[in-house]
Formats: sequence, structure tokens, C-alpha cells
Amino acid sequence: MIIEQIGDGMAVESNYRINGKRLWTTLMAMAEIGATPKGGVNRVALTEVDRAGRAQFAAWCAEAGLSVRVDSMGNMFARRAGRDDARPPVLFGSHLDSQPTGGKFDGALGVIAGLEVMRTLDDLGIVTEAPIELINWTDEEGSRFGRAMMGSAVWAGIDSEAAIKARRDADGTTVGHALAAIDAEGPEPAVHATADAYFELHIEQGPILERDGQRIGIVTGAQALVWFDAILTGQESHAGTTPPDARRDALAGAAEIILLVERLMHEQGETGRGTVGRLSVHPNSPNVIPGEVRFGIEFRHPEDRIVEMLIERFPGEAQAIAAERDLTLTIRTSFRVAATPFDPACVSLVREACTRLGYAAREIVSGAGHDAVHVASVVPTAMIFTPCKDGLSHNEAESITPEEAEAGAQVLLDVVLARANRRI
Amino acid sequence: MIIEQIGDGMAVESNYRINGKRLWTTLMAMAEIGATPKGGVNRVALTEVDRAGRAQFAAWCAEAGLSVRVDSMGNMFARRAGRDDARPPVLFGSHLDSQPTGGKFDGALGVIAGLEVMRTLDDLGIVTEAPIELINWTDEEGSRFGRAMMGSAVWAGIDSEAAIKARRDADGTTVGHALAAIDAEGPEPAVHATADAYFELHIEQGPILERDGQRIGIVTGAQALVWFDAILTGQESHAGTTPPDARRDALAGAAEIILLVERLMHEQGETGRGTVGRLSVHPNSPNVIPGEVRFGIEFRHPEDRIVEMLIERFPGEAQAIAAERDLTLTIRTSFRVAATPFDPACVSLVREACTRLGYAAREIVSGAGHDAVHVASVVPTAMIFTPCKDGLSHNEAESITPEEAEAGAQVLLDVVLARANRRI
Repeated sequence: MIIEQIGDGMAVESNYRINGKRLWTTLMAMAEIGATPKGGVNRVALTEVDRAGRAQFAAWCAEAGLSVRVDSMGNMFARRAGRDDARPPVLFGSHLDSQPTGGKFDGALGVIAGLEVMRTLDDLGIVTEAPIELINWTDEEGSRFGRAMMGSAVWAGIDSEAAIKARRDADGTTVGHALAAIDAEGPEPAVHATADAYFELHIEQGPILERDGQRIGIVTGAQALVWFDAILTGQESHAGTTPPDARRDALAGAAEIILLVERLMHEQGETGRGTVGRLSVHPNSPNVIPGEVRFGIEFRHPEDRIVEMLIERFPGEAQAIAAERDLTLTIRTSFRVAATPFDPACVSLVREACTRLGYAAREIVSGAGHDAVHVASVVPTAMIFTPCKDGLSHNEAESITPEEAEAGAQVLLDVVLARANRRI
Repeated sequence: MIIEQIGDGMAVESNYRINGKRLWTTLMAMAEIGATPKGGVNRVALTEVDRAGRAQFAAWCAEAGLSVRVDSMGNMFARRAGRDDARPPVLFGSHLDSQPTGGKFDGALGVIAGLEVMRTLDDLGIVTEAPIELINWTDEEGSRFGRAMMGSAVWAGIDSEAAIKARRDADGTTVGHALAAIDAEGPEPAVHATADAYFELHIEQGPILERDGQRIGIVTGAQALVWFDAILTGQESHAGTTPPDARRDALAGAAEIILLVERLMHEQGETGRGTVGRLSVHPNSPNVIPGEVRFGIEFRHPEDRIVEMLIERFPGEAQAIAAERDLTLTIRTSFRVAATPFDPACVSLVREACTRLGYAAREIVSGAGHDAVHVASVVPTAMIFTPCKDGLSHNEAESITPEEAEAGAQVLLDVVLARANRRI
């Protein structure tokens, strides 16, 4: 092992290389924990499989000489001391939990790449100026308790720990009980301390980078989002006996509103997002004109003002469709998230790393929620995206190449070094 | 009681009047069997409540001196002898079973009005030339065993008795077992014999007569019908990360097809019927672009050629919508019924009765299925419709006035007399 001290700790060298083969082997080893027959992963938060994933991660950290702290939400922090260990740490990480029929890389890539950063620094004998900490956040997916990113939400002070721990899964088990059941609860308080920066490497979970031929996405922030709940009421009646002009068909009205959502999305070009993902029909009988349709609508956009415009405009246009058909539309905003711009200095570091490393890269706004979005409210944050095959995620077929994983981890190493060694 | 023989039996007198008050009282008494708190009726076929309804009907028939035969499907035939009892009988009736949350009149009106016809003939001391028979058909609604009009289907030779008796309800009970359990099975074979005519009085179950200010609908036949089953497949993907032009949204495609169905209906004017009543979305998650939508489409029209045109045209136009969106559409015809024109002579009798009685009347095609549609395949048939409030049926709020019931029963008496006394 080369034992080397980086001069005065200020230099950033782009020829430090992570070990791509070791990264891939470790990713594949983690993917065996909860592996599904179809090549995916079922490692839902706070299950015995999650316990096994956490134990493997802790063992790897111990092998790497990292001290692991665990907080009362089960968030794990693997620390590597800095030369000036009193400096605020540079944080990086992601999550090891998965969807029930999830893939090998959603979350795991960011954690295992972080481990590879630690191992590479050991290989190279580098001691960073500031301490660095690799984090495994608890329950990012939210598939069991209905609240995504719960570990980072409590840590960042967005949700109260008591409220989160009282949440129940479908069997009635609380988060608090589930944490205790797999011994995931640690002695540290789940509260953010001062940190210098947070970086998260993640697969894009969309098709943009792949389609665009980019190796890396420089994530400038996360989208604003609004959810609406809608109930459209007409008159349930006989499909055979009700003539066209006596119909008050709630499903035909919903169809028009679905196409309105699509039109409003297209108006925003490539950055537009508008989706009706959930819809149920009552009475849902083949020969009865639907009397009621309940559905959920969401819009997302990188800019708050566009989402605000849609909140102004969409309900009125939907009401006009309903009125035209003598239907009653009840519509309310059920959830709203403001756009989260990431820290410009952290984003610049990602951009500079790509340039130094010669990776084709473009700016991108995260379409999905991530722990980084919560962390960004209390720590300067940026994210690094890698492409994923066909944009597929939350799916056992989720796939990236070893080269893509390596490039992402290389950028992560680069930005962590740059930030931890910066002159302050 | 006036005992009177109608001369040579050929005259039809329009001044014979049914007893509207007795009719209504009897209808209300039947509605108490299976009465629901919301004012409707739950008298599902082959239940203990159906047994009670049948027993009450049989008791009333016995009081009226009618002999009741029951066939092996539970169909009940209450016969009043003719002067020439060897003549083929004139049949009339409907069904006493209801939807689980049905109304007081769907089916019951035709049976109880038939009983009132018998009672009125007794009051007036009239003996018809031909014998007349009042029928209560078994399980018209089909809500329990999934086959509507099963009693008349077997009687008319459309379905085999063995196949119908082997059908099971949700609990696994067969029709055969359910018939035996309430002692509804009789010794007569469930096979049609020669009959002179069949008349069925029924509520319209649609809004046309009410809206048009008509007292009676002269039903000229039943519509042709086609059902399609469709599966539209796109690509399930993340609502936040998938840009507009990378989406293959199965629900947005289904929305376009729903509006196509509506457009094709409107092309046929007042007689058009096109409905998507059943639709389910997969995975039906608020932030996932739907990957698959399954739905059912039906079209109806009085003319076979229009339904045939739609069978030619609709799948191709729907496929074009799917192709434009890079979706895959699997579509198949699941059910088809040809138009049933009723017997012109029987229909004329209904028209003439309305004229004689001074009732506002119009021709109408039945939008719903009825036992009469099956019977029409083996016996000259016509139907008489009365309006129902707001066109509502299969609903506890189903409602008609005593005057509407009386007018319908009066027409029924008139046509039964005319047919049973006709010169042959």
C-alpha cells in the first residue's frame, strides 16, 4: 500500500483511480442479499433481508477501518478521519433498501461506490483534510410504511421522529417496532450536525442520459411537484337504454381530463411532466355507464413558477370539461413539493470533475425524490447521475454496465477529494 | 262479480278496466318481500327471499283459481283456461327476481300486472277464447350466477339445461343445487310448447319515454350488441423522470380510445350506444406511468348492419391510436347478440291498444335484455314499456307512479284479450 500525504492537502489529482472491478464485485455481492429469481433485488427496509444488507455493509466498513455510528432512525455513518478531524465532514452515500421487486442499483450504487471511494483512498494512502462520512439512509423507498426517504427526513428535521416511528405497515407493525426487531436502532440522535457538503451518486431512473449519449448527469436540483386528487361524478346508468344526450359518463369525462394533463405536459417541452397514474371506475361493470371516477394527477417541473402556473390553470380547465358534460368535479391539491436547487458550488465540482475526467456530461434535474433532496435543506448538496438501461428502475430488469458504475464512482471520488481537501 | 261471456269471443272492448288500486297494492305487497332500508328490493334469484316471493305469487294465483305448473328450471306458469282450451295459449309475464340493490318494479311490474289481468278477467267474468298463461321466469337478472335470463334461455332452447344447472355462484353453489335448496324445481320439462303469443310489460330502464312525455313505449325489438375486451400495453415508468417523448402511457392511449367510442356512438344519433364501463390500470400507482390498461367496450344499435360496421371499423381505429403512441393493443370480440325484431302483428296490437286507450305512445327499441328477447326466438312476441323516473333502474331509487303502472297493465289486458279472442 502506498502511504502518501497529499502535500498541503490542497491538490486534487485526477489520476487517482477507483478500482472498477472491485466496485462491481462488491455491487454484485450486495445484490445477492435479497436476490430475486428474475435478477432483481427484494431488500425492503427494516426486514431480515435489510438486516443482512446492513450487517454486510458494516462488515465491509470494519474491514476498511471505518468507525460506524448508527442513529435512532437506523441511518448508518461510516467515518474516515481527516487530517484536521475537527473540520465539518464531507458526507456522501445513498440507501441499501430496495423496492419489493427492485433492481440491483437503485440506492446500492451510491453506497457501494462510496465504499469504493474509501477503499481507494486507503489503497492510495490518502488522508483527506476534512473527515469524510459514508451514509446508508434508512428506508428511502417508502414501499413498506408509505413514507419515502424517512431516515433522511428525520435527520434533516423535515419530519418528526415520533411521527415517523408511529407509522404502520400493512400488518400494523410500526416503524419503531420494525427498527428494534432487526436491531437497526442506534444510540446516536437522528439529528443533522454541521457538515461541509453531501454528494449522492444514483442511477438516473429515466432515459435522458442514455438517449443523449452522456456518461454522467450533473444534477442541478430536484423538480417541483404537485399532486391532485380528483373525484368526477356523473350518473350511473344502463349502457343499453341511455341515449347519447342523456349520458353523464364520468369515465368519458376523465378521458378528456387525462388528455388535458398530457397536453399541459407537452406545452413545457422536454422538461414537462404530467401523469395520471392511478384511476378507479365505479361501478366498473361492463354494461353500466360509469357514475364515478376517482383519479390522481401529478405535474412536475424544474421551476416552481411553472408548477404554480399549473396549480392556477389545471383545475379550472378540468372544471370546464366537467361542466360541459354536466359532471361534478371535486379536485384538491394533496401534496406539493417546491423545487430544490442544489448548491451551486457542489454542482460546479461535479461539472469540473467530468471535464477533468473527460466524461460526456450534461446538466439534468432529478425527476425522482432522493435522500439528497432532504439533505439539501441543511447541507450544501449535489448529485451525480449515471445512465440506466432504457431508463428502467423500480424493476428487476434495472441495469447498468460496469463502466457506467465505475465512471460514477470516479466522479464521486473526485468531488469528495476536491471538497474535503479544499482550502477553508 | 259480473259473469259475462263475450258474445262469440271476437269483440275487444276498450272499456274493460283493470283495477289500478289493487294492482298498486299488490305491487307494494310484493316489494315488501326483500325490502331494503333505502326503499328498494333485494330478491336475488334462488335465495330464501326468492322462495318467499314465489310462494306469495303462487298463493295469489291459487286465490285467483289459476293452476300453476312449474318446470325443471323453476319457471312458473299460471294458467287460466280458454273457452277452446286446446288453442295455443297466449303467454305474458316477466320475472320476480331482482338485483341485490334493485328496485320494486324491474320484473315485478310485468308479473303483478299479469296477475291483475287475471283478476280483472275474473271480475268481469270473461272467459277468453284461447287459454292464457302468466309466467314468472327464473333468474332474469343474472347477478348471482353470471347468466342473465337463464330460465327463459333454457325454455327457448338457447342454452342447455345441463350447462345452466352446472353454473356456480361466488360461493361455488350450482344453479341446480340452488333450485333444489328452495324447492323451486318443478316436474315439467323446461321446454317451450306451441304458444300463440308472448307479451311482456316492463319499465323502460332508460329516460326516453319520460323525456318524450310518453305514457307507453311500443317496443319493436331489441338491439344488436357487441362487446370487446381490450388490453393496451405501454411501458411502466417513473412519472418524474420520463420525459414526454419517451413515454408510452397506456392510460393516455386508453383515454383516446374511450373518446373514440363516444364519437362512434354520437355518429349514430339518438339510437347510438357506445360505452366503456369497465377499466383497470396497472400498476395504478400515483407516480408511475401506467404500463397496462385493461378495459371493456360495448356498442349497441337497433340494426345489425350498424353493429357489423362498428365491428369492422372500431378495432382498426383503436389500433391506429395505439400505433401512434407506440402502444400494443390486443382487442377481441367477447360477446355478440344480433338484433331481435319483435313480431309485427303483436307489435301492432300494442300500438292499436294505445290508440284505443288514448295513451301517448311511441315506438322504442329495447336497450336492455329481457326474457322476451329469448321467447321471441320461438313465439311471436312484443313488449310494452312504461316510463320510469329519471330512467333509473337496477337501483333502489327506481320509481314509477301508480298511474304509469295502471296504464301499462291496461295495455297488457287489451293486447291479451285481443290476441286470445282473435279469430283463427
